[in-house]
Amino acid sequence: MLSTMQDTPLSIAQLLRHGSTIHGTAEVVTWTDAGARRRSYADVGRRCAQLAHALRGLGVTGDERVGTFMWNNAEHLEAYLAIPSMGVVLHTLNIRLFPEQLIHVANHGEDQVIIVDPTLLPLLTPHLPQLSTVKHVIVTGDSTDGVEVPDGVQVHAYETLIADQPVEFDWPEVDERSAAAMCYTSGTTGDPKGVVYSHRSVYLHSMQVCMTDGPALKQGDRALAVVPQFHAMAWGLPYAAFMIGASLIMPDRFLQPEPLAALIAAEQPTFSAAVPTIWLGLHQYLEQHPQDISCMHDVLIGGSAVPPSLMHTFDEDHDIQILQGWGMTETSPLGSVSRPPAHTEGEERWRYRYTQGRFPASVQARLVDVDEVVPNDGTSIGELQVRGPWITGSYYGIDADDKFDDGWLRTGDVGMITPDGYLTLTDRTKDIIKSGGEWISSVDLENAVMGHPDVIEAAVIGIADAKWDERPLVAVVLREGSDAKVEDLQEFLSDKVAKWQLPENWTVINEVPKTSVGKFDKKRLRSQYTDGDLEVTRI
Amino acid sequence: MLSTMQDTPLSIAQLLRHGSTIHGTAEVVTWTDAGARRRSYADVGRRCAQLAHALRGLGVTGDERVGTFMWNNAEHLEAYLAIPSMGVVLHTLNIRLFPEQLIHVANHGEDQVIIVDPTLLPLLTPHLPQLSTVKHVIVTGDSTDGVEVPDGVQVHAYETLIADQPVEFDWPEVDERSAAAMCYTSGTTGDPKGVVYSHRSVYLHSMQVCMTDGPALKQGDRALAVVPQFHAMAWGLPYAAFMIGASLIMPDRFLQPEPLAALIAAEQPTFSAAVPTIWLGLHQYLEQHPQDISCMHDVLIGGSAVPPSLMHTFDEDHDIQILQGWGMTETSPLGSVSRPPAHTEGEERWRYRYTQGRFPASVQARLVDVDEVVPNDGTSIGELQVRGPWITGSYYGIDADDKFDDGWLRTGDVGMITPDGYLTLTDRTKDIIKSGGEWISSVDLENAVMGHPDVIEAAVIGIADAKWDERPLVAVVLREGSDAKVEDLQEFLSDKVAKWQLPENWTVINEVPKTSVGKFDKKRLRSQYTDGDLEVTRI
Repeated sequence: MLSTMQDTPLSIAQLLRHGSTIHGTAEVVTWTDAGARRRSYADVGRRCAQLAHALRGLGVTGDERVGTFMWNNAEHLEAYLAIPSMGVVLHTLNIRLFPEQLIHVANHGEDQVIIVDPTLLPLLTPHLPQLSTVKHVIVTGDSTDGVEVPDGVQVHAYETLIADQPVEFDWPEVDERSAAAMCYTSGTTGDPKGVVYSHRSVYLHSMQVCMTDGPALKQGDRALAVVPQFHAMAWGLPYAAFMIGASLIMPDRFLQPEPLAALIAAEQPTFSAAVPTIWLGLHQYLEQHPQDISCMHDVLIGGSAVPPSLMHTFDEDHDIQILQGWGMTETSPLGSVSRPPAHTEGEERWRYRYTQGRFPASVQARLVDVDEVVPNDGTSIGELQVRGPWITGSYYGIDADDKFDDGWLRTGDVGMITPDGYLTLTDRTKDIIKSGGEWISSVDLENAVMGHPDVIEAAVIGIADAKWDERPLVAVVLREGSDAKVEDLQEFLSDKVAKWQLPENWTVINEVPKTSVGKFDKKRLRSQYTDGDLEVTRI
Repeated sequence: MLSTMQDTPLSIAQLLRHGSTIHGTAEVVTWTDAGARRRSYADVGRRCAQLAHALRGLGVTGDERVGTFMWNNAEHLEAYLAIPSMGVVLHTLNIRLFPEQLIHVANHGEDQVIIVDPTLLPLLTPHLPQLSTVKHVIVTGDSTDGVEVPDGVQVHAYETLIADQPVEFDWPEVDERSAAAMCYTSGTTGDPKGVVYSHRSVYLHSMQVCMTDGPALKQGDRALAVVPQFHAMAWGLPYAAFMIGASLIMPDRFLQPEPLAALIAAEQPTFSAAVPTIWLGLHQYLEQHPQDISCMHDVLIGGSAVPPSLMHTFDEDHDIQILQGWGMTETSPLGSVSRPPAHTEGEERWRYRYTQGRFPASVQARLVDVDEVVPNDGTSIGELQVRGPWITGSYYGIDADDKFDDGWLRTGDVGMITPDGYLTLTDRTKDIIKSGGEWISSVDLENAVMGHPDVIEAAVIGIADAKWDERPLVAVVLREGSDAKVEDLQEFLSDKVAKWQLPENWTVINEVPKTSVGKFDKKRLRSQYTDGDLEVTRI
């Protein structure tokens, strides 16, 4: 029996149409070195039409890819909306990739055009000769002075290119399962792998971002998108903002604590999203330069585990609720969000908030330990596998069967799930430490060490041990001027972790090495250790 | 270019799985003459499996239809979840249909089985001989004593039937576009017409119910579903509650103000949904029997326009926000919801709240006047047409091309839309009054008259007029003991409507006739007038 429902596709064009009309007075604010520049969603809608006409004029058609090499700003938002809406595919290029990775992903994605911010030209133009499919480079702003491109590549100024184009575009009706955007993972091992989002997955994910069990973005919110647009679609905020009528505040290249604090003071965001490092940095800055940032009611944090101490600090010092979330490029990225059950309070509520959160109805999750699904009983540990309409089922153009298990995505994250669905990650499969046959969670140790007031960052890796196979090594970054000794830190842990887990190997470093998206790069930390570059104290 | 996303179908089985595990401690409360009975969602999940096994045992298979002739209660919730999840089709039968309509829809839908509440048997069993496809009648509870069915029809007690069945069921993976449930419209003209919802439409609609620009149902809410489950899927609350982990409070047959007030006192709902009549009745009851009902933060009202006076009363006397909504059986039913823009306050905010609300991204709306789309400028008037993934595109098994326009549903509602997307309905196409070539909105007049403190209800119809073609006739129901004269009411209107709209024809009646779903039945009012049954005063 067929339903009588209309078969209207879920599409990004519908988000663009809705946001630029019904919510036409919402605005995208882009931070500059001279303060804010503003653009209404109605204007964004007209400029999207102009951009689409301009790209058609350059011959972009079919399912060709248009790359972006940009900060978070109004033009990047236009690219997010216009490119998929015209039926072609947006490819967000990570500006922090190493050159050989950048060359790999642009060639593998076969990008025909790259839109680039002037400030990022030095990171792109040297590699253009190796980008074999790129025919056009569009530089945002109104000038291409001094931009050097290889023969056969044309360079255009964004504003000049779109200036005389019509302000309406007859957005085609797309198959909702067709490609809308692609993003390569920034794995620390092997070549980056491409994930291709569909119109359907983007649309459904946007709905989730506005649902009460998700980030609950709402009309009138002013969302500060610190999470880069080149990283997992800025966690879906640009699309969700057009769906619901939330304004967007884009920091462009001003991601340091001082300009972020100025941006917050000037633009009064009500919501924000970023990796923990950003908030740690902002918090330290605000200790020296007090400022009320309580305009933000919710701050979504993901990408790595959030130290409980940071959550308490934001709650108590700034009256801001930190929402932990779990996700990855492969999951669009929203998986779980740590909204505690409504009936909880006090310590119990905090225990829920420390978790990576609960999965919504659209994301099924299970734990697998050696090919067997283990129960969600809050104690059984296994690799997290997920399934759902915005979870990837393959990687673009490569075989990666080992990343999937009977249609479920193997996340490489290890943890446990309570009967009421809250996830606690204990490790990455590759970071877990096996000591004397027992597992030690590097994440638990890191969180415990970061609870010490003098510790800014802590990363734990497993190192070879003759007796126990592996033992943890703790690398800590101390607060400036601290005279804490590693013995004090070990003592601090003594009532927080089991005795056999208490680490005896410590090293004080200036900074934890980070990946291109700001996560702890334990691979580099491990090679620093094996290369003898770390001064290890054994207590 | 194909996306790499998983092709996981949106399905009711996924809502059932999610709600009965992750939210297994949420509960459905059913009101009885001996207070509340409770059932956890975990139990509902097990009983759904048992019901599905039992129905399979009766031979229900393929896309056969299982009808329900029930109040809102736990067993009706089980039918809502189990029947579509097993791949067959739920058909909710409206218990208030006239016999010939009931016989028509059960035969037209070819229902194989009907599940019925014992208290409703007298309305069903007399018609069973004419229900040509029904083979089984399942009576909720544990007894079939005294139930008379025709030869060839088997009767079963629900509890006995499911008791020994397995508590798990291997829910099939369905095509998300396949039929999940059907509901016939309760139009006042012609035979009821069938709308068939798909798994996809139900799932997407459930997401919208939990979105911040919709009813924003959330985990931990206790949703009092007064709107019947036999009417437009109880506005999607049962499915949304399983999606988000909200408990459900079901009034069963206790829909009168007194038991509703007792139910609210006992169960402390936080959210509710019903037609205006229910709230008018409750409000009048509470004036005589004061009680704090402020446990409800939001009350969704739709089905007919909400008198502004009722909204103010709930706001000021009960601290409850009334959310007006617009929708119909054909729209699943959620169209628009009157959440005002975040920046508004005071009078401006109220003006937005008086509207039928704003459409979400998934429901496109336009106004058409004589084949031409008119602008959304807040003044141009046209027939509302809508489009989207949970809007019907046809009716089951009949031709109704005149109800659609180029793929858009013609709603039969007339109104205007502001540039920021707020709908104000002025009339039904068939109720609008044409006086001297100008349109008079019956709804505006009704609202204005209902603003008078002595008026409980007012319905306006057009009556033939020699000079002006048509003029409004106002039928009013006065508060008990009121000595207001119709001249006073006309005087009351004199500064509220244009002089040429001021009605000169009035009639005082005991009750406005209602349709089976509680809407003003203007068709009956018109025939009462033409039959000379109304005593009309001409001022």
